[in-house]
Amino acid sequence: MPEQITLYTAKVCPFAQRAEIALAEAKAPYTRYEIDLQNKPEWYAPQVNPASKVPAITYGGPSVPPDQPSPESVKLAESLVLVEFIGDLFAESGILPKDPVKRAQARFFIEGVSSKLFPAYLSFIVKNSGSEEDLIKALEYLQSLLPPEGFAVGEHSLADIAIAPFLGRARIFLVNNIGKDPTASEGAKIWDTITTGKFARLGKYIDDLFQRESYKATFDEEVITARFRKHFAQAS
Amino acid sequence: MPEQITLYTAKVCPFAQRAEIALAEAKAPYTRYEIDLQNKPEWYAPQVNPASKVPAITYGGPSVPPDQPSPESVKLAESLVLVEFIGDLFAESGILPKDPVKRAQARFFIEGVSSKLFPAYLSFIVKNSGSEEDLIKALEYLQSLLPPEGFAVGEHSLADIAIAPFLGRARIFLVNNIGKDPTASEGAKIWDTITTGKFARLGKYIDDLFQRESYKATFDEEVITARFRKHFAQAS
Ligand SMILES: N[C@@H](CCC(=O)N[C@@H](CS)C(=O)NCC(=O)O)C(=O)O
Ligand SMILES: N[C@@H](CCC(=O)N[C@@H](CS)C(=O)NCC(=O)O)C(=O)O
Repeated sequence: MPEQITLYTAKVCPFAQRAEIALAEAKAPYTRYEIDLQNKPEWYAPQVNPASKVPAITYGGPSVPPDQPSPESVKLAESLVLVEFIGDLFAESGILPKDPVKRAQARFFIEGVSSKLFPAYLSFIVKNSGSEEDLIKALEYLQSLLPPEGFAVGEHSLADIAIAPFLGRARIFLVNNIGKDPTASEGAKIWDTITTGKFARLGKYIDDLFQRESYKATFDEEVITARFRKHFAQAS
Repeated sequence: MPEQITLYTAKVCPFAQRAEIALAEAKAPYTRYEIDLQNKPEWYAPQVNPASKVPAITYGGPSVPPDQPSPESVKLAESLVLVEFIGDLFAESGILPKDPVKRAQARFFIEGVSSKLFPAYLSFIVKNSGSEEDLIKALEYLQSLLPPEGFAVGEHSLADIAIAPFLGRARIFLVNNIGKDPTASEGAKIWDTITTGKFARLGKYIDDLFQRESYKATFDEEVITARFRKHFAQAS
């Protein structure tokens, strides 16, 4: 039986959602603590994560309230590290495929998410600059890695956990035409482009991701939509 | 018993050396194929790695000469994916620590190598621009993660495999004062700075890394020095 887990997280953060999905897939008992990223508690950086980011985990140590972390627990951070950690602790979750080849393919898929999708997401969506072409190219590449059906390596795995939060936020941003750039009104069309026609396989994959219980239980559409709207209202 | 492994690699490449160290730690039988990065064989991208980079592996399939890869083998790429894969195949190698917490800490250390050390290495050493300060800051951060003695998480692990090739190349570059920038003649002093005084712990760690058999067997100082010299002679 693994020891106590406390997750420091934020509904708006895609990295944090990765850890939440992993814990949901693992059906792991844990304490959830929402960090207000606009107003982080003073104790958070010194006592939990020196990088002052979510997600982070405390593991083990005595039973304490989450806002009084114990020096005796292990502190871990970085979303992909946490997903692997949860997969290691809960082998039956299927987060880590049993077959080493599939595991390698899942990690290779994540490499593409980190090095191609994430930068495009950041510039096109979060910063609302950069070209939609980079986003489309990254998605084209990732689609090319997908098997004819199922998740990124067949069964649901860490690869799907790594990408889903970014696709969920991209959808909100695009279908609601959020963003101050004039092309932003084209958002809904872009979403259509990347989920139908030559992107039909990706569209099906995205549907499958969004239907997953662990995703639905950890994705708060209302909060994320409000955050995006506020962000771009402020920026313009 | 794992299946056949063929590694496509290049002595000069730090990423490729990661895979070589992992295979040496695992005492894995494998076929080594040197790719001339200045003159890559035509079949390499279409038949082994579409990204046309080293390292890459073929795994399984029939026994074939490395320059005639079989369509039946699994093709895998990305150095960190390969190190984890080799660790998964050869559990006794210790590449992946048995304790999930140590494993997470090793992956967290690697995150720092990828997001902090590698960019500084690339700009200061490979591109011979950028400031030595970024390199020093990244190393200071990584030193702060080290335990009082031993390797990155105590026993030798994937964390050490990920960093060693970059430190080996940094040493060659610095102690030989390679580089066209005027400050480059200061290289030996910089190496001294990052291995002694307040960097004594890092210096000891680097010594330990460089003494490791798997490192020595996969690091060709002469070839790498010649490559660096040539590169900077051409550039100036
Ligand atoms: N590489 C980190 C990134 C985490 C990250 O950037 N989190 C953001 C929120 S999405 C954060 O906490 N930023 C600090 C802040 O907003 O103050 C991971 O994968 O966990
Ligand atoms: N992210 C890759 C990087 C590999 C890489 O950049 N390899 C270089 C040599 S060090 C390469 O093969 N470049 C292609 C070329 O030189 O044509 C990994 O970790 O394996």
